[in-house]
Amino acid sequence: MSSDNNFRRQGILFVVSAPSGAGKSTLCDSLRQTPDFIYSISCTTRKIRPGEVHGEDYYFLSREEFEAKVKANEMLEYAEVHGYYYGTLAESVLKALNQGTDVLLDIDVQGARAIRTNVNQVLRDSLVDVFIMPPTIEELERRLRKRGTEKEAEIARRLEDARQEMPCWPEFKYTIITGSTEEDLTKFRAIMRAERYLSRRLTLV
Amino acid sequence: MSSDNNFRRQGILFVVSAPSGAGKSTLCDSLRQTPDFIYSISCTTRKIRPGEVHGEDYYFLSREEFEAKVKANEMLEYAEVHGYYYGTLAESVLKALNQGTDVLLDIDVQGARAIRTNVNQVLRDSLVDVFIMPPTIEELERRLRKRGTEKEAEIARRLEDARQEMPCWPEFKYTIITGSTEEDLTKFRAIMRAERYLSRRLTLV
Repeated sequence: MSSDNNFRRQGILFVVSAPSGAGKSTLCDSLRQTPDFIYSISCTTRKIRPGEVHGEDYYFLSREEFEAKVKANEMLEYAEVHGYYYGTLAESVLKALNQGTDVLLDIDVQGARAIRTNVNQVLRDSLVDVFIMPPTIEELERRLRKRGTEKEAEIARRLEDARQEMPCWPEFKYTIITGSTEEDLTKFRAIMRAERYLSRRLTLV
Repeated sequence: MSSDNNFRRQGILFVVSAPSGAGKSTLCDSLRQTPDFIYSISCTTRKIRPGEVHGEDYYFLSREEFEAKVKANEMLEYAEVHGYYYGTLAESVLKALNQGTDVLLDIDVQGARAIRTNVNQVLRDSLVDVFIMPPTIEELERRLRKRGTEKEAEIARRLEDARQEMPCWPEFKYTIITGSTEEDLTKFRAIMRAERYLSRRLTLV
């Protein structure tokens, strides 16, 4: 044993999922301010919303561009939600993990499921998925209305999705019931820290 | 699904082990100030040290008393170290866990091993063991000398024990390399929090 105890480890792929309006975007925005991991930017074919930036919030692609990347096997996972594609480019994620950098991936329940079932063993060992649970459906509805970007029919559809998605929490390694933004951040960072101290991830160098 | 998302869970048994001098006692003293778990008090047959209090630091028992409890199957684990018995009374630990209260148990590597191998499935699912690793053997020696309570032969024996125990870190679920008291506390509390958000521990009520 070396007299100096330093550990080396593989990167961890943190996957965070939630019904829309649960507070996931606010949480991820806060997490992006912390320097100790890479935030993986997803691709989507949905329209860019006011205030969103290509290459920061998403890579906004046409259906043709997206389908070409799927065919070229460049997607770690992808799914079609509400008629739009959402997906994650494999290359940048795998490169970061191999360098020991942690990656944060913000995807929906379908995407998390795809990652969980499709990836190889190495990536599966690196995977830590976290479900962000709204305290109540009523609170979720309040948040969706407050956002003010969706029409009534869209809100109704999102609430129906949430009712479908909320029972999926046991599929995820961790479940956080959202409180204040500050509380959510503290909880999520506790998970990120603890996962780094798991002995099975560590190699003494 | 209830419209109000509240979880119920079993208590968690946090076991913390370290070579003596690694900073475990300071860490546990800090943790005892936090209200959200019960600190399990061990029994020992070693002599009481200046400043120690019976029923707070340990239950100080005679060999005869200790052996009677072992015979009566009242010990969750026990071990003989340096000619003294150390052990944990089962009753209070199990009662707390069943009530959903977390328990912190400060035991040596032998004791942690006994808990890991001897306990039943329910207790094994509740068990989270954490190894506190000194940054170097030299730093450990410095801390032992600073404590000033041990004679040279005792220090030499403890360092030899540490050399034996330090390679045991992979047996533990988590490993923390000690830094400042503040850092150690932050790391340990991250583990305590994260373990509480594990979906497998949660039941929606």
